Amino acid sequence: MAEQQKNDTVDKDFLATFARGLEVIKSFDAQTPAMTLTEVAKKNDLSRASARRFLLTLQKLGYVSSDGKQFRLTARVLDLGYSYLSTLNFGGVITRYMEEVTLKLGESCSASVLDGQNIVYIARVPVRGLLPINLQIGAKLPAYATSMGRVLLAAMPQEHLDIFLAEAPFEALTPYTLTEASQLREEVDKVRQQGYAINDQQLELGLRSVAVPVFDRHHNVRFALNVSTHVSKVSKEKLIAEFVPLLEETAKKITASLP
Amino acid sequence: MAEQQKNDTVDKDFLATFARGLEVIKSFDAQTPAMTLTEVAKKNDLSRASARRFLLTLQKLGYVSSDGKQFRLTARVLDLGYSYLSTLNFGGVITRYMEEVTLKLGESCSASVLDGQNIVYIARVPVRGLLPINLQIGAKLPAYATSMGRVLLAAMPQEHLDIFLAEAPFEALTPYTLTEASQLREEVDKVRQQGYAINDQQLELGLRSVAVPVFDRHHNVRFALNVSTHVSKVSKEKLIAEFVPLLEETAKKITASLP
Repeated sequence: MAEQQKNDTVDKDFLATFARGLEVIKSFDAQTPAMTLTEVAKKNDLSRASARRFLLTLQKLGYVSSDGKQFRLTARVLDLGYSYLSTLNFGGVITRYMEEVTLKLGESCSASVLDGQNIVYIARVPVRGLLPINLQIGAKLPAYATSMGRVLLAAMPQEHLDIFLAEAPFEALTPYTLTEASQLREEVDKVRQQGYAINDQQLELGLRSVAVPVFDRHHNVRFALNVSTHVSKVSKEKLIAEFVPLLEETAKKITASLP
Repeated sequence: MAEQQKNDTVDKDFLATFARGLEVIKSFDAQTPAMTLTEVAKKNDLSRASARRFLLTLQKLGYVSSDGKQFRLTARVLDLGYSYLSTLNFGGVITRYMEEVTLKLGESCSASVLDGQNIVYIARVPVRGLLPINLQIGAKLPAYATSMGRVLLAAMPQEHLDIFLAEAPFEALTPYTLTEASQLREEVDKVRQQGYAINDQQLELGLRSVAVPVFDRHHNVRFALNVSTHVSKVSKEKLIAEFVPLLEETAKKITASLP
């Protein structure tokens, strides 16, 4: 219970041990894929005794393995993220519709939701691209600079959008990035009216993309669907004339098949 | 602490609250993507009071959202699985090598590790396939019936292999599936000698695949890499003559680039 006592909030409903344990999982990353007990303790601001209990618990549950000195996450950790994906993609149904889009257009198709200031990829059907971007499921990109982000922002209640835009000005990732709150507000209004968002080299030079919202049966936006391409391959006009209708049709099919 | 008291083990190092919390996350799935407090309590064998604390903690941390009645996982849950993937794929390096394989062969390339009796997909570069299999990261397949599974079994210490094979006979997924311990032991020996595994329609009719191990710098097998194709497209001879050398070369490149 040492972990619970450490908790400086007095919220009796907050399970600090659980919260800290999740942080311990997240403390393993590309920079520190394997850590000793001391390193885990230090990185999580825990006593060695506490860190040991978290690691032994994770090891007993099969989420962590150890060679006696260093600890590593195991593939079982994916079960946690997979729970979320299966609540959303229900047996790959969304991915199958996305594969149809990729096949018809010859371009990568992605789906994402919002998490704070970022979009998070929940499904992706890639084609070998010209761009060195490697986006796996769970990868994040800044919402303000992406077509999917703007579609998701357009679906937000006004007060949430205000909170989001309070972080502006945002970083200019290319010379074309909209960075000011007023610019983004105007763009989001436009997206809301036209029903789709175009991103023309605002995330990365050469990258052009289009996104539409996917609704559930209660008319709530559940996620955004997009296709990305290279400026040298597809004009903005073609994107609007050919890509948007296919994406809108696909979004409708997904809505109809949502449980 | 109610959760801790419920724990019927007397292991003082086991953080039962943390363990139960992870179970609560996993209790959301494709069948029950949204649950009420009562449903979460029932599914996890928790009191309503306990279930409420877990849900409120998850909600406060942003892993769960609620409309006031039903609770759902949010995309933040992916951060947990993403921790694991980033410890392994370190910025998409593995995936980039796999993309090269897919480009050269025109076939899907996958990577997996073992978790108990299953292989778990940790990376995948698909091509539009003939087969209705949809495998996202985190998806599982029975190790005994897959080429990657056999490569991973071949890397196991003998006593672990014995434990694995103690579950035999396994289910015959096709008329060709090896199901007996003796058959699998022989096959695994062969895989160990030749350095690759061929799976010819033992998982699914029409599916043919080949896998190789990927070693780290300490000569431990870190994961398996495979290419799968359809029997009508690629002969077993071509698989061995052309696919195996490319996979082995790719495995060596990955080993050299592992941190």
